[in-house]
Order: sequence, then structure tokens, then C-alpha cells
Amino acid sequence: MLPSKLSSGLLTDLYELTMAAGYVQSRFDARATFELFVRQLPRNRNYLVAAGLEQALDLLESIHFTEEEVSYLRALPVFRHVQPEFFDYLSRFRFAGDVWALPEGTVFFPGEPVLRVTAPIVEAQLVETSLLSIIHLQTLIASKAARVTTAAAGRPVIEFGSRRAHGVDASVLAARAAFIAGCAGTSNTYAGYHFGIPVYGTQAHSWVMAHEDEADAFSSFLDVFPEQSTLLVDTYDVRAAIDKIIATGRKPHGVRLDSGDVLGDSVWVRRRLDEVGWSDVEIFVSGDLDENRIQEFLRKGAPMNAFGVGTALSTSADAPSIGAIYKLVEVEMDREVRGTAKFSTDKESYPGRKQIFRFRNGQGMYAGDVIGLEDENFPSADRLLLPVMRKGWRVEAARQDRATTLLNARARFLAARTSLPDQLLSLALAKPTYPVSPSARLRASADEARRSFLGAHA
Amino acid sequence: MLPSKLSSGLLTDLYELTMAAGYVQSRFDARATFELFVRQLPRNRNYLVAAGLEQALDLLESIHFTEEEVSYLRALPVFRHVQPEFFDYLSRFRFAGDVWALPEGTVFFPGEPVLRVTAPIVEAQLVETSLLSIIHLQTLIASKAARVTTAAAGRPVIEFGSRRAHGVDASVLAARAAFIAGCAGTSNTYAGYHFGIPVYGTQAHSWVMAHEDEADAFSSFLDVFPEQSTLLVDTYDVRAAIDKIIATGRKPHGVRLDSGDVLGDSVWVRRRLDEVGWSDVEIFVSGDLDENRIQEFLRKGAPMNAFGVGTALSTSADAPSIGAIYKLVEVEMDREVRGTAKFSTDKESYPGRKQIFRFRNGQGMYAGDVIGLEDENFPSADRLLLPVMRKGWRVEAARQDRATTLLNARARFLAARTSLPDQLLSLALAKPTYPVSPSARLRASADEARRSFLGAHA
Repeated sequence: MLPSKLSSGLLTDLYELTMAAGYVQSRFDARATFELFVRQLPRNRNYLVAAGLEQALDLLESIHFTEEEVSYLRALPVFRHVQPEFFDYLSRFRFAGDVWALPEGTVFFPGEPVLRVTAPIVEAQLVETSLLSIIHLQTLIASKAARVTTAAAGRPVIEFGSRRAHGVDASVLAARAAFIAGCAGTSNTYAGYHFGIPVYGTQAHSWVMAHEDEADAFSSFLDVFPEQSTLLVDTYDVRAAIDKIIATGRKPHGVRLDSGDVLGDSVWVRRRLDEVGWSDVEIFVSGDLDENRIQEFLRKGAPMNAFGVGTALSTSADAPSIGAIYKLVEVEMDREVRGTAKFSTDKESYPGRKQIFRFRNGQGMYAGDVIGLEDENFPSADRLLLPVMRKGWRVEAARQDRATTLLNARARFLAARTSLPDQLLSLALAKPTYPVSPSARLRASADEARRSFLGAHA
Repeated sequence: MLPSKLSSGLLTDLYELTMAAGYVQSRFDARATFELFVRQLPRNRNYLVAAGLEQALDLLESIHFTEEEVSYLRALPVFRHVQPEFFDYLSRFRFAGDVWALPEGTVFFPGEPVLRVTAPIVEAQLVETSLLSIIHLQTLIASKAARVTTAAAGRPVIEFGSRRAHGVDASVLAARAAFIAGCAGTSNTYAGYHFGIPVYGTQAHSWVMAHEDEADAFSSFLDVFPEQSTLLVDTYDVRAAIDKIIATGRKPHGVRLDSGDVLGDSVWVRRRLDEVGWSDVEIFVSGDLDENRIQEFLRKGAPMNAFGVGTALSTSADAPSIGAIYKLVEVEMDREVRGTAKFSTDKESYPGRKQIFRFRNGQGMYAGDVIGLEDENFPSADRLLLPVMRKGWRVEAARQDRATTLLNARARFLAARTSLPDQLLSLALAKPTYPVSPSARLRASADEARRSFLGAHA
């Protein structure tokens, strides 16, 4: 079996546990706030799409350590000098913090917190690795899928990448993320079952090859799926295959081109199908597609009705990771609150609990964001971070069934896309980029933290 | 919770299920053989490392459909005209086929089957997507990790990429694959617990930032971990941090550099530590490392003792997918055996059940592979594909505990690496590439299949 048990407290980097031991044993009783954000846009991206929050909250509500897991830790050499109270602590461990987050499907930018966790420092620290891993995956795929569905300009895109996603869980969650960012469905049947995502697919080359005669392969499939067959026509020779289908006299729902000169073939196939009055038979195209190829096909007027996109989508192939981080921004201890930041040369950050304020122009389009402190107020802006968990439990608004949560996220993204400036929707890098700036108070608070830090470390 | 349940028959592309319905309903009672192989080396790779077989066999031994899953399928519009016998079939479904495979840790090349499945065609077809997804992930990561550990030239490499792996399952399995390919361990605690992989890690920047004073942060950690502390020294200023540690008078196990000019800093830190007689304190380096940076550091004589490699490794960032495919190569029906292949212009394949024959030169180094038919015999070559499953159950030799399986796979890779020609171990593309050729009989059989196909499709 796969080792996945999302509720296991061990699904984390060991250093979260050694630090936890350090905090418990040194009686470091602080309440901490961490923010999860992205430092820079990955290659080829003009914006990011928040996704994965539902699974992150699932984790926070269920995370714990089994007795066997605690015994494993106790026996590790690194914990040799750690007192028993730490292992007792782990046995009772539950996450009981507060979480604010961007609702899934929200468009966001570097520097903007996707998620903010406030909890006793051990709790907030222990969940770092899995929160990053969960939010990173779906945000990565949704941000790629947004480009692909934008390039398809209204034509359905089906997520086809299960076999190349990074494992079976990633395949299901990639399907979910792709659906949020506008895909019409997925080939992943489990994603259909579990999340209610529409599922698509009919036949592979092996079906055609298993039959000695290609025409038999088509007829036999049409017998079983008289209304739903999308027949794969490129196993041997596309034009011969189309003529064999026509010769059956039975109109399939569609035909699929998966290799070769799909642009040229699509033109030929459309004409041939139209000649026999089958103008409603759809041409479905797949095979190493990405947003660039789709855009090029459509620019050249290719008569393609829908697309299946696999590897490029399910692995975000051109940018297979995002520099997402989870940074300590505030420590509250002995009734004193201290903003924290890192001042090493290449990785600076802003202290304090933040909120994202999004401004719109007169036409309702997104005009710019301000990252401010949580208690700031910009009356004309939307506040993007919302409370989603209090004391370890989802707030009422975050307690919807999986399918509803997903449909809402998708609707949120599709609405957001209509509010994005045109240059962000281009496949090329946006010029100008979307304006995001720290508020005057955030800057001042960063300057103050830096001065106080430099004073202390002079 | 994560949707992962590796045993679910729904973890597959829908078309596997529609084809299954087609085979059942059209009474297509064939026994089929599929081979899983890679068409081309991904970017920057000279060879691949087989991994993931254990999880693939777990899947094959457990795959089934629950009642609820079958009901879900029955209600899908695409199955509207499918007879009840198909759903009865799914309710009883178990995989009962035979499997041959490369043992994990085996070095292999394009065109060489990693896995060969022979089963009733429906069974062999239904497992396609999940087999690909499982084998692909770990083979991808092991093949990347092999480069990283080779570049480290004997220094330990710790897999540090859980937060950027594609989800929590991928993070655990990436740790497993990286260990097979020579990593000394992982930061992923679950991978340690579940697979027995050595785990590493002590503190993050947040530990230092949470304390008002960096020196306190170090002392407090040394209190809890007197022997095992690797202290992170780049939160503010590396040289100041080193001096603070020295001032405690307590020697840590090591120090970690994670940002900035790690090459220059490592030289300074080594000298400073040596000055105070701490020449056994290790310098551990992390932060956006990959094989190229490691090789460059070592070429320049950097005094680095060990490396933590994250994103580049856990996502195989420079080549985040491999073109792995699962092709029908033989159909046995009505006592007739027919080799199958695809003859479309850009994606040809060889028919028939294959074996890989590996030849060594006089020094015992790998000299070249021949891909032949299963029943061929080359007395001086090793046969790489071994039987691992019969009638749906692991053969005796494949029934080891997880930790033993993993240690054997790692030993197999480490031995294989010593037998690889030098140019394959270079980070640059190998010239010449490793020689792999089809046997004369395989070529003849492909020609015959092509002639017979062209005759039938003229």
C-alpha cells in the first residue's frame, strides 16, 4: 500500500520535530504566526491561482501521532537526550490554532500570504512541511491549468495527465486543481468519484491494436457505446481510419487525434466529416499538448473542438515547482508581541500579520494590491484573506461538502479571470506586471524591525 | 483527507474502464501482454534507475472496486448502454496476471521494458494508468538522485525536498527513490518510519528568529541536543553566528549554510572552526542545490562535508517527467498468438514479449544491451527481467519486508554504478551513448509484423 495517511504527524521534515522538542523542553511558551507565501513568480507565469486549502484544512483537523509513531521517534538517536514530556506531548498532540487563507480559486501574487497560521509555536511549526506540500501542489497545477484553459479560448480542456503526475495522489489532486482553473473535466476516474469532477475518455491505441482489424475495433466499440464513442484514429493511418468509420455508417460522438501532424489532419478530417454530413462529430486533440501548441493551433484556425492535455499540465512541466515558503512573522510571548523577519542578504521578509487589499478600477478590473498589516483599513479595497479555522476547527463557512467547495473555487477563479488585466492573460510575460506593494505601515514596521534588529546585533 | 487508496480500481483513466466494458461486453476473451518502457531519455540523463516496483506490486495485489465505486460507474452517462455483466465483473475484479520486471535499482535505457504484464486483456488494461504513475514517479526521482549523489563524490546527500514534492505521498516516495539512488537519508520523517530510511535534520530559520537573541537560540538547542545539533548559521550573519557558537564553548555536531555565498562562507567557516580546534565540526550545505552546483563547489575545493538537496531532487526539476508508456505487444486469442505494434509515423514499437540481455566487457563493465525476444538466449549476457508475480501474487523472491527490499535496491544501484562506463556518469550528455540494440530476431519479427500489417491494411 501507499504510505499515505494524511493525518500522520510524521509527514514532516525531521527538523520540525527536533525544534518541537526544543520548544517543549526549553519551555518556550510562545504563540507564533507563520505566513505561507511565494517569493517570486515561477517561469512563464503572470499570476498564481490558490488551491489546496480544503486538503490543508483536512490535515489540520486530523493530524496526530499514533503510539507506534511516537515509539519510532523515541528510539531515534537524535532524541536521545530529550525528556519524556516531549513524547507525552506528541501523544496528545492536536492542532488547535487559527487559520486565515485565500479562498481556493483566488488569483494572487508573490509576497501575498496564501495562508496564515497562528497557534502555539510547536503546533504552528510542526505542520509547516505538510501545509507547504499540500498547498504547493495544487497551486502549482492550478496556475499552469489557468494558462492552458485561457489558451483554449472557451474550448473544453480535459486534464489527461494521471500517468505522468507524480504518483497516484498527485494525479487525483492535479485533476482537482486543473478543474478549479477552468478545465472541463479529467480522465482520472477517482477524481470524478471523490470530487464530482466530470470524467472523460473512451479508447486507447491498445483497443485498436488488440483487434486484428481496425474497422472491427471501431464497430465493436460503437456497439457498446453508441452515443459516447470518441474513436482514436491515429493508430495506423488517420485518413484510412476516418474512411473506415464513415463506412460503418454509424456516427461517433467524436474522433481523437493523438500524434503526427494534428493540425493538418484536423483540417482534412473536418472536411471529410462535413462531406458526409457529420459536421457535429467533434475533433478531439491530444498528445503532448500545452498552452503554446493550443494557442498556435487556434491562431492557424484549426478546426479542433476540445483538447486533452497531459504531462505538461499534471507536472506543470515548464515550471515544476514554486518557491513557496512558510515564514515566522510574529511571536507573542509573555504578553509581548514581536514581529520577526529575516535580514540575510538574499532572502528578506516583512514582519507582522498581514492582509491583502485588492483594488479595482472603474471597470471593475483588478488594478493593484497592497500588502498591509492585518488591522489596516482601505475602504475601497477587498480584503482577500478570510478566517477559515478557529482553534483547530473549520469555521462554518469552510464546512461545505467536497463537490460544493470545488465548484465554488472554480467559479471564483473563472470570475477572477474576467477581472484580470489583458496583459496578465497573455502567454508571454506581462509588461507591466501586476502592481503589488507593501503599505506604508508595513514598510515602516519592517524598517523598525530592521533597526531594532541591527541595534541588537551590532 | 487525501483521497489516496491505492487499492481503488478507480485510480485510472476512464478510458481503461470504457475499454474494459467493451472487452467484457463484446466477449473479447484474449490474453494480452503489455510492456512498460521509456521511449527516450529525458533531458540531461544518460541512464535511468528502475524504482517503484514494490508499490506497483502492492497495487496489483490489492486492486479492487468497492460497491460504492461500482455504483458510481454504473450511473455515469458514458456507461448508459453497458450491460450489467460488466458491473458484476468489476465487483469481482482482482488482478490475476503474471508480471516480469527489472528489480529496483537496476540501471536501464530507452526501449527496455521495466515491467511486463501478461493477463486477461481487461486486467492488464485496467492497471495501465496506476502502474505508469507509480513506476514513473520513483524512476524519475531515482534517475535524478543518481546524478546528485554521483556529483557529491562520496559525500552524504540528504533528500530535503518534501515541501516541494508534488504532494505528501510524492514526498515520501521521492525519499524512497532518492535513497535507492544513493542518498544517505531524508528529512521526511514518515519515510524513516515507514521504510526505515535514515532521517536527518535539526533546526530551521524560524528557530533562530523565534528567539530574540541568536546566541540564546543556539545554546538552548545545544541544551536539548548536545550531540546532534547542526546549527543553522545564515539567518542573519554567518560569521557573527559562528563566533556566537564558538563563544558558547560547546561544540555542535555541525553547522549549516543555506543561503548567500555558500562557497566563500564554507571556506571562512572551515578555517574559523579549525582555528579553535573544531576540525571535526561538519559543514552541511543546503539551499537550491542540484548536481551542477555540488560538482562546481567540489571542483573549487569547497570544504563541504554533506549536502541537503531539495526541490531539484524531489521534483526532478530539470526533467520533471519521463516519456514512460505501456504498450500492447502481444495478444493471445483462440490459441493464436499475435505480436502487436504501432506503425504510425512518429511512434513505432516492437511486437512480442521481450527480454533485456546485458553484456559486460573483460573488466566486468557494462558493454551493451540487446533487447531480444523472451525465448532468445545469449549465454554470455545477464537476463535483466525477472518474474515477480504469478497469477496475481508475488513470487517468493519478491516477498521481502519493505526495509529489506529497499536496502537491496540501493545496493543493486550502487553496484550497477560501479559497472557503468565513465562517460555515462558524467553530468554532461554521454558520447558515445550506451549501446542498446534490438536482436536480429526481434528486428525480423518487427519486419514480419509490419509486412503482415501492411498487407492487411493495403
